[in-house]
Amino acid sequence: MTTNTQVLLAETPRGKLDESHFEIRAGDVPPVADGQVLVRNVLLSIDAANRAWMQGATYKSAVEAGQVMHGYAIGEVVDTNSPAHSVGDVVAGELGWQEYAAMDAAQVRPVGDHRPLTHHHSVLGIAGITAYHGLLTLFGIDEGETLLVSAAAGSVGSLVGQIGKIKGAHVVGIAGGPEKCAWVVDELGFDACIDYKNERLSAALRERCPDGVDVYFDNVGGPILEAALFAMNLHGRISCCGAVSQYDSPSPTGPRGVPGLIVTKRLTLRGFIAMDFPEHDAAAIADLGAWAASGQLQVVEDVVGGLEHAPQALIGLLAGENRGKRMVRVGPDPA
Amino acid sequence: MTTNTQVLLAETPRGKLDESHFEIRAGDVPPVADGQVLVRNVLLSIDAANRAWMQGATYKSAVEAGQVMHGYAIGEVVDTNSPAHSVGDVVAGELGWQEYAAMDAAQVRPVGDHRPLTHHHSVLGIAGITAYHGLLTLFGIDEGETLLVSAAAGSVGSLVGQIGKIKGAHVVGIAGGPEKCAWVVDELGFDACIDYKNERLSAALRERCPDGVDVYFDNVGGPILEAALFAMNLHGRISCCGAVSQYDSPSPTGPRGVPGLIVTKRLTLRGFIAMDFPEHDAAAIADLGAWAASGQLQVVEDVVGGLEHAPQALIGLLAGENRGKRMVRVGPDPA
Repeated sequence: MTTNTQVLLAETPRGKLDESHFEIRAGDVPPVADGQVLVRNVLLSIDAANRAWMQGATYKSAVEAGQVMHGYAIGEVVDTNSPAHSVGDVVAGELGWQEYAAMDAAQVRPVGDHRPLTHHHSVLGIAGITAYHGLLTLFGIDEGETLLVSAAAGSVGSLVGQIGKIKGAHVVGIAGGPEKCAWVVDELGFDACIDYKNERLSAALRERCPDGVDVYFDNVGGPILEAALFAMNLHGRISCCGAVSQYDSPSPTGPRGVPGLIVTKRLTLRGFIAMDFPEHDAAAIADLGAWAASGQLQVVEDVVGGLEHAPQALIGLLAGENRGKRMVRVGPDPA
Repeated sequence: MTTNTQVLLAETPRGKLDESHFEIRAGDVPPVADGQVLVRNVLLSIDAANRAWMQGATYKSAVEAGQVMHGYAIGEVVDTNSPAHSVGDVVAGELGWQEYAAMDAAQVRPVGDHRPLTHHHSVLGIAGITAYHGLLTLFGIDEGETLLVSAAAGSVGSLVGQIGKIKGAHVVGIAGGPEKCAWVVDELGFDACIDYKNERLSAALRERCPDGVDVYFDNVGGPILEAALFAMNLHGRISCCGAVSQYDSPSPTGPRGVPGLIVTKRLTLRGFIAMDFPEHDAAAIADLGAWAASGQLQVVEDVVGGLEHAPQALIGLLAGENRGKRMVRVGPDPA
């Protein structure tokens, strides 16, 4: 190891993200200070939140132009100056978009023994935890209730809908394009899927959710959230997980019906992120692992090869081209 | 009793409500069918919700043009064809904007022995119950937290802020005009009050809520809700009680920051109406009554004389001219 390929955010995007906002450079492998470990990046998680971080501080500080792109990743400890981790340990943390990261020992945590490693980003990782907590820990869903899920073919949405089916709900997805919608129904087992690119949302919601919507899992915000507000039942619950429709082109306004429909329908809207319920993580991972092992939950992964393709992987994810959990393979699995 | 003065909604308003939308007529005193009582209206509650009902179905059916205006009121039973109520009983229910109403026995309920009667509309009535449940039953507030209240001089807001002070919160109101703001601080005991007509909201919120906002009690929606979203703390709670800013001139859009700020700050927004927590009403009324009796809670009432002034009373309330609970005296208290 002599060089350290790194992807920088070259320029903060003002509108749509494109490759010109990134720069790839051959950096140096960082020194390993006392109390640190050197981690070789193996699998980089690609998330819509990566784009949100460019907008400014969110639940973490912003990524500034000139910095290595922030990103959650799984890697292998290849050098250590800390008793906490040994060479060969497989760990996860904010390694960033680079081949090697020097991390304080407390900034990384060992990943469990479960393999394939990719599952620690998908069903047992941020996607699974987000889906589980956002649906079950936040609100729960009862048998026979109607669950609506946007970005239904995405990493989180594809799991949310399947968990809804496991719990006996009537599950309706929203996705872009007829192929994706067919896949959501035929492969993932949703009861129906609305193609927001080719259908009138309000009419489609009335037809596909004839009993109204009890829980809406919102990954997108914008006009889809607005349409969902009008379709919600009395005492409906909205799990606010993200606003992917807003990251590339922030809307100057919010959805109609806020707060009018919230009051008259006595809705509850709650925002959350995956890390908010650490006391429930073990239960979530146990359930998710069991459902995946039994085949009740299909784990859909979309692994792009090569760190240099990370910018395009994110740009494509924001355009909705992925199915299931997207990640970038930076290097081979540890032996 | 030979005639029954009634105020009709003559025309559904499309924009700002004015007197031309109402019509006063000398109707007939209705017959009292089997199982019904005839109620003489004494005190009519004037609420922003009266305006919302003209927009269409909300939590109740819409008021249609040509109908007697809907309205909650307290009155005296003057004739009865039901064993449930006797002549002389004082009852409350949806009597409407008229002198006499024939009501099914189950549509009215006796009001308690507490006097003055006006308190059954204010501190022990819909205003007090709304304030109590929206602040304490929905979310609660802890000592030292910052509570922000819009429409702070209004019937509900004036009570919410005072309850917040009783619970040890730092309480900041929002009201229109310097006199109202001074009154909210000097007379009601709020820690501060922002004059939304003359101050820049975002700057004023930073100054008056230096530790951010933990609970926002929203009576108004619109730009004030938007500003509050930006001022909320992590895990902040927003009690969605009404959208008075939207009733006369519905906005085609909602507040910016929905859902982005809801996600990143992990906010909870909950809509409610006063009648949502019947199992907690007795506790609420006991607390409210005790606080009013001890003087910890000032009961502010704004009683307009004469049914014919009800339209102007509602129009003025929507313009924010009232302080405390507005009602219209339709007739003298029962002997």
